[in-house]
Amino acid sequence: MANNLINPRDLDFLLYEVLDLEALCARPRFAEHSRETFDAVLDTARGIAEEHLLTHRKKNDSEEPRVVDGKVVMIPEVKAAVQAIADAGFIAATKDAAHGGMQLPHTVGGAALAWFDSANQATTSYPMLTAGAADLIAKFGSDAQRAKFLPPMFEGKFLGTMALTEPDAGSSLSDVRTKAAPAGDGTYRITGTKIWISGGDHELTENIIHLLLARIDGAPEGVKGISLFVVPKRIVHDDGSSGALNNVQLGGIIHKMGWRGTTSALLNFGEHGPCEGYLVGEANKGLAYMFRMMNDARISVGRSATSMAYSAYQYSLEYARQRKQGRLPGEKDPLRPPVAIIEHADIRRMLLHQKATVEGALCLVLGCARLMDDEETAATPEERERARLLLEALTPIAKTWPSIAGQDAISNAMQILGGYGYAREYDVEQLYRDNRLNQIHEGTNGIQSLDLLGRKVVMEKGAAYKALAGAILASVADAATALPEHAAALKAAVDELNITTLTLGKAMMAEPARALANANVYLDCTSRIVISWLWLRQAMVATRALAGSPSESDRLFYGGKLRAAQYYFAWELPQTGPMHTLLRSLESTPYEMAVDQF
Amino acid sequence: MANNLINPRDLDFLLYEVLDLEALCARPRFAEHSRETFDAVLDTARGIAEEHLLTHRKKNDSEEPRVVDGKVVMIPEVKAAVQAIADAGFIAATKDAAHGGMQLPHTVGGAALAWFDSANQATTSYPMLTAGAADLIAKFGSDAQRAKFLPPMFEGKFLGTMALTEPDAGSSLSDVRTKAAPAGDGTYRITGTKIWISGGDHELTENIIHLLLARIDGAPEGVKGISLFVVPKRIVHDDGSSGALNNVQLGGIIHKMGWRGTTSALLNFGEHGPCEGYLVGEANKGLAYMFRMMNDARISVGRSATSMAYSAYQYSLEYARQRKQGRLPGEKDPLRPPVAIIEHADIRRMLLHQKATVEGALCLVLGCARLMDDEETAATPEERERARLLLEALTPIAKTWPSIAGQDAISNAMQILGGYGYAREYDVEQLYRDNRLNQIHEGTNGIQSLDLLGRKVVMEKGAAYKALAGAILASVADAATALPEHAAALKAAVDELNITTLTLGKAMMAEPARALANANVYLDCTSRIVISWLWLRQAMVATRALAGSPSESDRLFYGGKLRAAQYYFAWELPQTGPMHTLLRSLESTPYEMAVDQF
Repeated sequence: MANNLINPRDLDFLLYEVLDLEALCARPRFAEHSRETFDAVLDTARGIAEEHLLTHRKKNDSEEPRVVDGKVVMIPEVKAAVQAIADAGFIAATKDAAHGGMQLPHTVGGAALAWFDSANQATTSYPMLTAGAADLIAKFGSDAQRAKFLPPMFEGKFLGTMALTEPDAGSSLSDVRTKAAPAGDGTYRITGTKIWISGGDHELTENIIHLLLARIDGAPEGVKGISLFVVPKRIVHDDGSSGALNNVQLGGIIHKMGWRGTTSALLNFGEHGPCEGYLVGEANKGLAYMFRMMNDARISVGRSATSMAYSAYQYSLEYARQRKQGRLPGEKDPLRPPVAIIEHADIRRMLLHQKATVEGALCLVLGCARLMDDEETAATPEERERARLLLEALTPIAKTWPSIAGQDAISNAMQILGGYGYAREYDVEQLYRDNRLNQIHEGTNGIQSLDLLGRKVVMEKGAAYKALAGAILASVADAATALPEHAAALKAAVDELNITTLTLGKAMMAEPARALANANVYLDCTSRIVISWLWLRQAMVATRALAGSPSESDRLFYGGKLRAAQYYFAWELPQTGPMHTLLRSLESTPYEMAVDQF
Repeated sequence: MANNLINPRDLDFLLYEVLDLEALCARPRFAEHSRETFDAVLDTARGIAEEHLLTHRKKNDSEEPRVVDGKVVMIPEVKAAVQAIADAGFIAATKDAAHGGMQLPHTVGGAALAWFDSANQATTSYPMLTAGAADLIAKFGSDAQRAKFLPPMFEGKFLGTMALTEPDAGSSLSDVRTKAAPAGDGTYRITGTKIWISGGDHELTENIIHLLLARIDGAPEGVKGISLFVVPKRIVHDDGSSGALNNVQLGGIIHKMGWRGTTSALLNFGEHGPCEGYLVGEANKGLAYMFRMMNDARISVGRSATSMAYSAYQYSLEYARQRKQGRLPGEKDPLRPPVAIIEHADIRRMLLHQKATVEGALCLVLGCARLMDDEETAATPEERERARLLLEALTPIAKTWPSIAGQDAISNAMQILGGYGYAREYDVEQLYRDNRLNQIHEGTNGIQSLDLLGRKVVMEKGAAYKALAGAILASVADAATALPEHAAALKAAVDELNITTLTLGKAMMAEPARALANANVYLDCTSRIVISWLWLRQAMVATRALAGSPSESDRLFYGGKLRAAQYYFAWELPQTGPMHTLLRSLESTPYEMAVDQF
């Protein structure tokens, strides 16, 4: 516990007991792997988290990157940590062995990243953005592009970015205005401004590879006219060396409330001279490519939120065990020594909220990674299709719920530390500031809500929704005998959700804007049902394990799992009741509120 | 709206239309006052807020106070603003004319402070802590102490602090260890350490007057052995001048997440030489005196939270009207220009949540100030007693609910600004950081919850609870014809609360610790019912006004009030349903969770 990151016993529980990670070793893609190699990878990740990342989490916040003489200056620990992550192979952890990757399951890659994220999200962002950028090149680029860019990106010699957002096109990518003019030699000349580019400029590496959205001259308006380009900071020669600057000008960095260690840059492309860009895949398909990556990125945001909240939970748990303050109700003798604050019921309430949140969220985001593996490598087309549909439905939830519930959890950690929680001398306030970004980037809560209700629920005649409801009901059936109360409560919740979903689906056909107006509540409601499902699954594993002969420490661990499940079913799931009422009534006060009435 | 502080139309509405402020002018204490003098005072407050406070809100955050050569250095704007507030008489706004005060109602004093708090809470803290410290001297000090300390404090020549907390006595004041040894001449020698002392050291004024809790040698243990002392930074001569340093040593300042402009000091008393303290009132009665002040301070925390959230609301409202992004559902033509984001239903949902929260909270905290006036100056003993009881019940709610719901509201403001909301270049992220303290200081949420359920609900055979329920039912009766649905919903909510309260009351007799374990939920539940009540009252005023011939702008304003009431009744009040279920079942998972199960 001493590192205040992830509870390793819980990580093992989720990976091996709930998600059956070892079963993946039977698949051809992972034939080289075994529980031993997975554990070795995760031990390495934990070591890097403890030795290279946690050690400068606070420093990377208090001494944030700054621009000096046009260059980004940052503390040296960042470069060392990025290199350690790259050297251990983590940028290419899940990539094909043929491309130089470790060909690990996404589930293992995600668990490794949970260690990194929990220790120092800002520094971890550099290699992980690079992995995402490399993914686009690997999937949609040409052989030549792959050969040229992937090896240095995997080695951490070049880092990567995603350059999507513009000053007037944040949530609305159809308004992207950056231009790409054909140069006549197959390359393009890029002009335009991108903002909020994470890792957009720095001196960590000799080169930066931007994956950028732009419009080719004459392309259609809107989303159908956006193409994807590779735009390097320096021209890359055929021998792999980096040459002249490519006219990607740093316009400034944004000073954020948190997540300060990751530069957020304003970049001007082609302002002072030609800026070369290389089309990735086909013209005008950029947004579709980007969305393939964005789905992974959204689950990554959920994992980030989960990991930060997990760290805050462990931090406040340790504090609550050590800090002495006050006496229990009924104790009148002021000479009796104060108790550890974990003895106070309200402290335990806040700790249990945190436990239920972070362990539920970790189950969700690792479960999504497991579905990514299934989508790619499950034995039958039916299993792969089922995984794809479940992922479609779960992605907006995995992006959003951990970022919101995780912020509440971190707020509880702060409350447990009291004034110290609010002081920069301690770690929790930074996690509170850092995590708040997760509700905004990679699609705001509002965007995710529309994605869930307006797209995912109705897509393919409701196939994704049905896959989700079916998966939940399968767990209900499994738990019906051993945990009848929870099973019945979850069954009832799904029945209610079916009615609400049907009601909204009909309303969407009649008056879409009104029916979608409360999508945010629908997302919250569905998320709580999904998390209840994941707690039922954890509780079933714990129940079966307790029926064996667990060790004393395992007995406590599984008992804690049952308590957390009980907490979630008693405290969190019932809050869906009023949500169903509100959603089914198509409550329209916000929708109808006149702008001048505010 | 340009200043993004409080909506002046709303402030007028609450003061004059809902709380009937003018009626106070009929009371002897306020006979010199009229609506004109009240308005003049509030105009002055607004002017100071705009010209002296808002102008350095951001600078006081980014250039926070620091210690240089043992002295606290801060930006010069703070001193100028503090002096402007003092010069306009606001430190003594509500104090007796005989003591040099303006003898204004608390309701007006509170409204003036709302202007200051909304503009710059950190700077406003210095004069307002002084007002609180002066209050203790005025109420419990000797004539000599009043004559010596009050005039320079009212003039802002000396500033004041509350020195309660110690490193091992935060929430638990019974563990205060600071000592006071009789010096033989009627004064005491103070030794000990205080922490988190807001305004504890600075160079704004020639002297600082600490109101400090300590134990006289031989005093009883626990809360019955705590006395209150005046401890000046410099010895004050009989002619009012400040002399030698009094051995109050600055041990350091704490670096906070927000509210940075107010120093939070660690102070060592008497470490390097004798530190003189002067007993206030009787020995061993310090905590009772302090609690008299603390009740006011708790309402002030609620007002602070309200004001910050109000400023964030106005800021995001203006942004939402100006920022263009995206198109409405159903709009397929990418050539159509983007709409102002206030056109998006989810943005209006977040704005309406903010409006319902901040206008409801302002009604609550100004309503509490009105009750303070009634407690002191209402015509009959019955009215004064009723006000006292209502205040007892409402104080923990006024402290807590605005700090929690206000943080959610500020979070919504941030969400509306998107990435810009997260950037330090804009104002909202500072308000998010600043307000988070309000859930911690002056008694945490947990302390307030225990105060409500464990003390206020059961005190005097339930008299405070009955007064609150009676006041709510009177409003229900008033609204039964004009707003039957809201009236019925609120009546049902009170009926439910009665049952829940009775259930918990019985349980407290049987097993107090278990019955109090969910006090946090009880506070949340009761708060929502109280805010619904205040929205019903606002809605009734609006309904009556609309039945007249309001101007077009008033028609929109009152219509907005009705929408906000509708929002609160449809979106927020129903969330009490699952809370009642949980509370009545005495759900005990957190209470029973074993420490080793986490």
